[in-house]
Amino acid sequence: MAKRKSIRTDIAWSAVDRITVKGHDLCTEILGKLSLGDMAFLEITDRLPTPRESVMFNAIAVTLVEHGLTPSSIAARMTYTGAPEAMQAAVAAGLCGLGSVFVGSMETAARMLQEALPDPTVDADLDQLAVQIVERFHSRKQIVPGIGHTLHKPVDPRAPRLFEIAAEQGYNGPYVKLMQKVGAQAEKVYGKSLPVNATGAIGAIASELQLPWKIVRGIGVLARAIGLVGHILEEMKNPMAYEIKQRAEEEATAHLRQP
Amino acid sequence: MAKRKSIRTDIAWSAVDRITVKGHDLCTEILGKLSLGDMAFLEITDRLPTPRESVMFNAIAVTLVEHGLTPSSIAARMTYTGAPEAMQAAVAAGLCGLGSVFVGSMETAARMLQEALPDPTVDADLDQLAVQIVERFHSRKQIVPGIGHTLHKPVDPRAPRLFEIAAEQGYNGPYVKLMQKVGAQAEKVYGKSLPVNATGAIGAIASELQLPWKIVRGIGVLARAIGLVGHILEEMKNPMAYEIKQRAEEEATAHLRQP
Amino acid sequence: MAKRKSIRTDIAWSAVDRITVKGHDLCTEILGKLSLGDMAFLEITDRLPTPRESVMFNAIAVTLVEHGLTPSSIAARMTYTGAPEAMQAAVAAGLCGLGSVFVGSMETAARMLQEALPDPTVDADLDQLAVQIVERFHSRKQIVPGIGHTLHKPVDPRAPRLFEIAAEQGYNGPYVKLMQKVGAQAEKVYGKSLPVNATGAIGAIASELQLPWKIVRGIGVLARAIGLVGHILEEMKNPMAYEIKQRAEEEATAHLRQP
Amino acid sequence: MAKRKSIRTDIAWSAVDRITVKGHDLCTEILGKLSLGDMAFLEITDRLPTPRESVMFNAIAVTLVEHGLTPSSIAARMTYTGAPEAMQAAVAAGLCGLGSVFVGSMETAARMLQEALPDPTVDADLDQLAVQIVERFHSRKQIVPGIGHTLHKPVDPRAPRLFEIAAEQGYNGPYVKLMQKVGAQAEKVYGKSLPVNATGAIGAIASELQLPWKIVRGIGVLARAIGLVGHILEEMKNPMAYEIKQRAEEEATAHLRQP
Repeated sequence: MAKRKSIRTDIAWSAVDRITVKGHDLCTEILGKLSLGDMAFLEITDRLPTPRESVMFNAIAVTLVEHGLTPSSIAARMTYTGAPEAMQAAVAAGLCGLGSVFVGSMETAARMLQEALPDPTVDADLDQLAVQIVERFHSRKQIVPGIGHTLHKPVDPRAPRLFEIAAEQGYNGPYVKLMQKVGAQAEKVYGKSLPVNATGAIGAIASELQLPWKIVRGIGVLARAIGLVGHILEEMKNPMAYEIKQRAEEEATAHLRQP
Repeated sequence: MAKRKSIRTDIAWSAVDRITVKGHDLCTEILGKLSLGDMAFLEITDRLPTPRESVMFNAIAVTLVEHGLTPSSIAARMTYTGAPEAMQAAVAAGLCGLGSVFVGSMETAARMLQEALPDPTVDADLDQLAVQIVERFHSRKQIVPGIGHTLHKPVDPRAPRLFEIAAEQGYNGPYVKLMQKVGAQAEKVYGKSLPVNATGAIGAIASELQLPWKIVRGIGVLARAIGLVGHILEEMKNPMAYEIKQRAEEEATAHLRQP
Repeated sequence: MAKRKSIRTDIAWSAVDRITVKGHDLCTEILGKLSLGDMAFLEITDRLPTPRESVMFNAIAVTLVEHGLTPSSIAARMTYTGAPEAMQAAVAAGLCGLGSVFVGSMETAARMLQEALPDPTVDADLDQLAVQIVERFHSRKQIVPGIGHTLHKPVDPRAPRLFEIAAEQGYNGPYVKLMQKVGAQAEKVYGKSLPVNATGAIGAIASELQLPWKIVRGIGVLARAIGLVGHILEEMKNPMAYEIKQRAEEEATAHLRQP
Repeated sequence: MAKRKSIRTDIAWSAVDRITVKGHDLCTEILGKLSLGDMAFLEITDRLPTPRESVMFNAIAVTLVEHGLTPSSIAARMTYTGAPEAMQAAVAAGLCGLGSVFVGSMETAARMLQEALPDPTVDADLDQLAVQIVERFHSRKQIVPGIGHTLHKPVDPRAPRLFEIAAEQGYNGPYVKLMQKVGAQAEKVYGKSLPVNATGAIGAIASELQLPWKIVRGIGVLARAIGLVGHILEEMKNPMAYEIKQRAEEEATAHLRQP
């Protein structure tokens, strides 16, 4: 028999007459006092946000809630069509696709910044770091995360707005600056317009908020769960999934149905 | 070829230079101005909340974020153990279990109230409705949703706190009263203490907020996604899933391993 | 502290030098000797199939593997597009939609038959049972499960083929007969052609195989997991998900993009 | 408007009177003639297996069906506890955890072999390839996939049994030999016993079957879906998930419940 390790959670517990979450009494200290976004901050960081942190964190989370018809929201709608009694599984199906291609890029951006600048209080040569970062991705023929956008040209409008809020709230620090320098350096190296996009801005601001890069994807996942509920509600009232499936099936099998 | 139906979404769209969500410009009207909870309200109701709606909606959503170690959060942790590169799938696995047993009861409570009182502006005899409701469940040997609790005795502390906030914000209306009368009537009929619990309070307050019962589960799903991210972050830092699995396996297969 | 219940599994255990599954040594009794379908039979029934059971069970499971482009397979493909590094999550997303609308009907058909005829060895008046069953669904304005088909008219070709195999293998018993009588009786009552479809045939044959209705959906789930892997492999080589999404987005947001 | 790409599937289509899967008529050529494992082979390779391929493919798929109580099967059981009406979502939750840690290793093993030996018909120096492979993993301080086992010591009994079947069926080719040489070389370099394990044997044999490494994980996913259905059926009859959760919660929150 293997020796047992102890198991322990510090998240929450319930007594007969009260519930405690991360050290705060749910009924007297949280309900009616904490907004959903601040509760998410508490879940992620183990502490309540300051007012500035609250504005900043809510802004990046809100950015991630809704991206319209995406592969993820279509997957959720398709799933709801088959199992309307299990809405939770439709949201789950939508979340399953939040991997490396879409939500992953802000994780990669945050990682790039935090690995280049492990301690943001140290006075670093950001220009040189930006050159090194871009050189590393370029030499490996990898895409630099957090810059450029296929639709939003020349600028992803979310990035300057998020940086504006960051400046207002005092989060215009080294990670934000480094991210912008990476974009500028990449434009030189790749010879085309590559401004910081929304995932780059979020990766930088999450780093300013001292959120480790490993948990950045989690913000995207919880935010998108909110948006997916919105898509399922619309699918309830005004369905499209079955029609999309019908058309796809008709076209995709046309060559098989020839006589 | 079947005739095509048109497909349409009114949620969001992206132009080259701007993104619109439910008729609001994301960058100028939402980011930095709307909290995550208010964004969820917008997703669910297609409009911005009033200040009172905001307090009330955030309170019920926050109530649902964190329930400690549940089958759902353990499923998420187990999944993370096997696929740490796909955190989104771990949250998805946790959501898959938010069905009839746990989160479903607030949906059932909201449905019970809204079917008994389709139009809350009509002056109805709430005492009589409560008697009818309890009689209907009792005669079918079904559990009345939204009352009683296995752990929180005599009272689930979240219910009076949520009702207190409802009273402060002006949501102490017919659905809240009906829910409380259902609890009182059930105590008479079943002969035991059955105060309104958190799911009953949420079902009633969601009805006061004019949220159709069919979408009530969605609030639980999006809130719990936030809590599940918290559990996965703890599992990253201080894992327990594998140890839980080891112990379960050891005990559950002991009879097979006899010589 | 609550009193502990013991936990126990009888499925499998691993010793240092051998693995046992449902009482059979994996290496010496299963590998190379049992096909995947027979292994599924063992998982579901706790025993090895007879040759006749093997043919019959494999036939109903194989019927359920592939249904072409369905909401479920499109959900899987959409998910793969976003998270190609997590193919397992794409299959999971596809499975999430196998609920009441599609796969549920064979569960409902099996339940209908098994509740009408709990003991198939008892000599029952199948004609009378069929009349009662149809009357019950008709009076509740519910659809009788397992009959009719929107595409396959006048006959779902899988049903007669499955019944043919059932006759060859000796499973042409009371459940198969009752299912056929239900179809014939429904045609009288509803005044239109309603032959037994594939889900009705599978529900009946699963009942002949003594599989409780509660586990019938499981056959559909495991079979469709196989088909979903096939769809993901095709999506790898010849993707369609992103194009489907692009078209849906373009049409569904056209009214929002008007100047 | 972006130019449309055509979409196309070659998997299946349904006419009014027949269904075709990968070019085979479902009713006349597949049902009653193809076993579930052979149907899986057809889904994965687009062709029917030869008798030898059938034995070999079924053997590796069967190996992957059942691993007893694993994080994945516990996640499925936890999910079923909360949503017993949605068994498909419980299987989905279980699949979500089949990532890099458990099922991924056979993918990695197959990739290692296929990248070292892209064309198995070419006469290659397998000893030298094995030295190079081990050197590469060793120099990067990565674990060599497909060798060693924490429980099954000195030998994972599945590996020699699978190799025995491979020899009987004529699949004892260069990939199997290379995998064994990798194990032997690793033993020299790491100075401990590191025989080929089940995932190494499966990775090698899948390569012999000419299955690209990118689809190898799919075999694990479809096989485990079968096993997960078995676990859910046992959970229905003899539940353990809630008890496991109770114990975990009690111990993990003990330090919080101190007065």
